[in-house]
Amino acid sequence: MSSGLTKIDRGNITSPKGFTAGSTFVGLKTYAEDKLDLGILMSVSPCSVAGFYTLNKLKSHSVTLDQERTMNGRAQALVVNSGIANACVGHQGYIDASDITKKVSEHLGLANDDVLICSTGLIGVELPVSLIKTGIDRIVQKEDGGHDLARAIITTDTRTKEIGFNFRHEEKIITVGGISKGSGMIHPNMATMLAFITTDAAISPDLLKTMANKSVDQSFNMITIDGDTSTNDTVLVFANGESGCPEILDGSPEQALLQESLDQVCVFLAKEIVRDGEGANKLIEVNVEGASSREEARSGAITVASSTLVKTAIHGNDPNWGRIVAALGRSKCEIIEEKIALYINDICIMESGIPTPFPKDSVVAIMSGEEVVIRLNLNLGSESATAWGCNLSEEYVTFNSAYTT
Amino acid sequence: MSSGLTKIDRGNITSPKGFTAGSTFVGLKTYAEDKLDLGILMSVSPCSVAGFYTLNKLKSHSVTLDQERTMNGRAQALVVNSGIANACVGHQGYIDASDITKKVSEHLGLANDDVLICSTGLIGVELPVSLIKTGIDRIVQKEDGGHDLARAIITTDTRTKEIGFNFRHEEKIITVGGISKGSGMIHPNMATMLAFITTDAAISPDLLKTMANKSVDQSFNMITIDGDTSTNDTVLVFANGESGCPEILDGSPEQALLQESLDQVCVFLAKEIVRDGEGANKLIEVNVEGASSREEARSGAITVASSTLVKTAIHGNDPNWGRIVAALGRSKCEIIEEKIALYINDICIMESGIPTPFPKDSVVAIMSGEEVVIRLNLNLGSESATAWGCNLSEEYVTFNSAYTT
Repeated sequence: MSSGLTKIDRGNITSPKGFTAGSTFVGLKTYAEDKLDLGILMSVSPCSVAGFYTLNKLKSHSVTLDQERTMNGRAQALVVNSGIANACVGHQGYIDASDITKKVSEHLGLANDDVLICSTGLIGVELPVSLIKTGIDRIVQKEDGGHDLARAIITTDTRTKEIGFNFRHEEKIITVGGISKGSGMIHPNMATMLAFITTDAAISPDLLKTMANKSVDQSFNMITIDGDTSTNDTVLVFANGESGCPEILDGSPEQALLQESLDQVCVFLAKEIVRDGEGANKLIEVNVEGASSREEARSGAITVASSTLVKTAIHGNDPNWGRIVAALGRSKCEIIEEKIALYINDICIMESGIPTPFPKDSVVAIMSGEEVVIRLNLNLGSESATAWGCNLSEEYVTFNSAYTT
Repeated sequence: MSSGLTKIDRGNITSPKGFTAGSTFVGLKTYAEDKLDLGILMSVSPCSVAGFYTLNKLKSHSVTLDQERTMNGRAQALVVNSGIANACVGHQGYIDASDITKKVSEHLGLANDDVLICSTGLIGVELPVSLIKTGIDRIVQKEDGGHDLARAIITTDTRTKEIGFNFRHEEKIITVGGISKGSGMIHPNMATMLAFITTDAAISPDLLKTMANKSVDQSFNMITIDGDTSTNDTVLVFANGESGCPEILDGSPEQALLQESLDQVCVFLAKEIVRDGEGANKLIEVNVEGASSREEARSGAITVASSTLVKTAIHGNDPNWGRIVAALGRSKCEIIEEKIALYINDICIMESGIPTPFPKDSVVAIMSGEEVVIRLNLNLGSESATAWGCNLSEEYVTFNSAYTT
């Protein structure tokens, strides 16, 4: 928060000017405590939009439709349902997604192509389109509807994930807000990650895409819960220009502040997903420093954070350096064994590739906290990267091996 | 065993003619019940040899030395210690590995360069070289020493892994035997896989390398326990020609039989490693058929077999098709959703990309056995591949999160 960013109290996706949200329930999420399962995000004016989608070749038709509609960098509303993923249902899924967005466009008085759709939940089940259409008729857009929308998008998450920041720009205020949902693993689905971010900055679709890509790459693309990726993973970023500030231009000081806001929002929402991972109670942060290239640092960090053996060791508060450096060794990261230094929560565990005597009891005690920070210095170059993961617990196995079909 | 191969009763690495083994203990394996921890495999005559090593950039110095010494395709003996991995100890590890092989070469009266070394166990700990040298003096080579050598190489494996086959070739008999060790995960080590295979066939180093590579690629390279790879993984194949049969030539009928023997030995030893995985009690076989290319089929099979969500579902006898096809979707395998068919233990679960009604109770009952076979037909081409993995259990997590440092 150094550079003039202010964290907003109870900030979320409707904190930026000109965004409203409305939610209701239609009975899609029978397994969850919170019954809200259908919501709409809308902007008073057309937005620049940037979309980032799952790389899984098995995709929800809701994802396919959004990929087509965000090609032009423009959208004005988003409908989200939780409970059913609209995946593995054949071509009907595409027809249903189109139908629902058409209904929303009529309900809101917008062009059909300006409405996007996201779905999360069970796969192999068709969306009950009539039920959803009836639900849409009941939805009322509210200026403070963001919190309810955050509730409407979660599945087995134990809490909502919401954040907002703002900064001053020529006597006006630019706000960035967002919500996300994560790691519910329900019948035959896996953790679907959804994140929606809004800002009232004025910015071209191209520059927004470049900036959002930078934020997503160091946040949502650097988290791991169990290595599986979903049919529905989506990040959407909307900018409507309603702050009244002049357009953000490439290379300007405002651009730096907007970038920092997007970074902070994305990193917060991504880390919240990991913290709330199934059966997880520890956040693992892995910093790889001194790498020859950024790509290598990223590969090293995410490989260590994903390692089953590292995740179980940290579950047991075990400063198991061997598993950490062995995971590093199988990543794409070039290493020279004799140069590696390893720190756990700032205590040196390994130097010059050889374990150092360290106060084991203290390290174990420190590791029993909610956050374990692994720092690997490769001493080869100046590039670095950070990834986040969580411990692997017996509860994860129990939960995920329970009959779900 | 269709084609004239015979499985040998209690066959192992000393079943082929001209191979002897001897074992002893020097106190490296305090954590294991079986105390044998040092052994030597020797051939009466120089062998063609093929070596396959871990791709981890963090390597045991025992691996480094073998990589150098098998470059010429020739070796005559192998010394193995279990208990200490000779990894993460700096350059001293290389000096120690060289020293120990030198001692063995003197003990056996062989050229130093013809002796290989493998180590498995704790990393970050130096080998007690004097103790090991004293142990070597006590080792006596025996014609039936294979079973004890199989004991001497295991760490926390619950049993030895041994196999042998033979076939007739012009009135003579050619034998192939092997031993392996797997998935003990001990302080700060991960599952080291070692496999040693011998044959009394006469064969050039180049042809042996080609054939062994084919076998290793469809066996040891297609198994997964927890996705982590070790600093010490090694497969060594020795051929000494002592059967008295003429040299095996490329394209001959004998070559096909030798290939099948190597395949059978490697697949058996690889599957045994998976069956004996930490906390695992189910073998998962994943067959991907109808792929456009062999590489894609391999990627699909190994990705499904490695998926944490698939492994936990199978632990719970859950025919969770969604997790299976989603794992397939994130592999390198090209898919057309509408063409995918999925079978679990031969029961059709999904057809044309859409789940079919299946007798759930029957499938759950069948899945509670010791072997679960997942078959995915992509209906795109004619290539196929098989991978093997194991269920992920609460016991795995408990075992691997226990303090080990």
